[in-house]
Amino acid sequence: MTDVPGPRVHIRRAADRADYDRATVHAVLDAALVCQVAYVVEGEPRMVPTAIMRRGDSVYLHGNRQSAMIRALQGGALAAVCVTHVDGLVAARSGFHCSMNYRSAVVYGHAETVAGDDKEMLLEEFVDQLIPGHAAAVRGATKQELNATTLLRIPIDDAVAKIRTGGPIDDEADADLDIWSGVIPLSAAAAAPIAGDASAELSVPGHIARFGENS
Amino acid sequence: MTDVPGPRVHIRRAADRADYDRATVHAVLDAALVCQVAYVVEGEPRMVPTAIMRRGDSVYLHGNRQSAMIRALQGGALAAVCVTHVDGLVAARSGFHCSMNYRSAVVYGHAETVAGDDKEMLLEEFVDQLIPGHAAAVRGATKQELNATTLLRIPIDDAVAKIRTGGPIDDEADADLDIWSGVIPLSAAAAAPIAGDASAELSVPGHIARFGENS
Repeated sequence: MTDVPGPRVHIRRAADRADYDRATVHAVLDAALVCQVAYVVEGEPRMVPTAIMRRGDSVYLHGNRQSAMIRALQGGALAAVCVTHVDGLVAARSGFHCSMNYRSAVVYGHAETVAGDDKEMLLEEFVDQLIPGHAAAVRGATKQELNATTLLRIPIDDAVAKIRTGGPIDDEADADLDIWSGVIPLSAAAAAPIAGDASAELSVPGHIARFGENS
Repeated sequence: MTDVPGPRVHIRRAADRADYDRATVHAVLDAALVCQVAYVVEGEPRMVPTAIMRRGDSVYLHGNRQSAMIRALQGGALAAVCVTHVDGLVAARSGFHCSMNYRSAVVYGHAETVAGDDKEMLLEEFVDQLIPGHAAAVRGATKQELNATTLLRIPIDDAVAKIRTGGPIDDEADADLDIWSGVIPLSAAAAAPIAGDASAELSVPGHIARFGENS
């Protein structure tokens, strides 16, 4: 654990929005279902979106064991992992001060492959992170399925969160302009669940039905 | 324009979800306010989230002219740019087939710096992409503001979209299990605008008031 920025994450611009505190980074990661993972292949960047889960001071990624991302990270490539939440549109009195409210985190680390009972347990936790309560509802993983999936643990080496909240920060010189400025909050919303064809006659379980109830 | 995958984007796994058609890639990019941009510094990946706008077969990024990302891309580093939309949670009858519905695009290219009238016009278009109609409402950019901001154009060299839609794809062997499977749709929702302190007595203009009307 460290709250001191490493060289990869030391933010110079808008430095007041940067936060190296691991608890802050963890909270931003925990609010995400997907991340973008970048790595280097023959000197060039590669990037893919993928599911993410944090446990302790590590993030977990999984994928088909043949995928380019899995193979590159297993081969020792440094992983850069980013999550971004857009929380609002900031309408200022000048284009220059228009902005977004957001929470983002970028973490760096080298992957380790997870095997055995830990792998099976963590893959179940991935299901529950996606749809809380669903891991207990599904049939268990087969040996073939476990073999087809690679689970990677990436201990967080460097990390930074960058967060903007609040209203527009207009120039003082613009204070008397009759231009509305403020924030339009954004959030992810779930709609009512849609049963697959083979489930049309099954009752919707509670852990599924709770989605979309407030929509 | 090309619909043939370059080496950076040739997807082997879940290849049926990959689409190299530029119109598809453009549509995924156009639905995004933010992207993640990755590039290589001394052999290591770096990644930051930032605002994105597409015009023609290029994407535009902007930032403070001193920012590490701007300087790296101006220095010739290849940019990898990713946008990801999560459209739904896919609850299957097995953990293995649980998934997300999503639209993602990854594009690669080398940045060019945009100057002059084009720069000013495109920065205004950035404001309108964030909040449609707002560019006409704000005061014009000052020379100082324009100088502080660098606008980059990244002609799309390689590109791929990856899209998953529809319901769960359960194993045939699981067809008779009494486990509900289906999809929980997700989307971004806007809440009612919140006026800044200095705008509390101004009426909310139409281009702002339309946000949150269906929430």
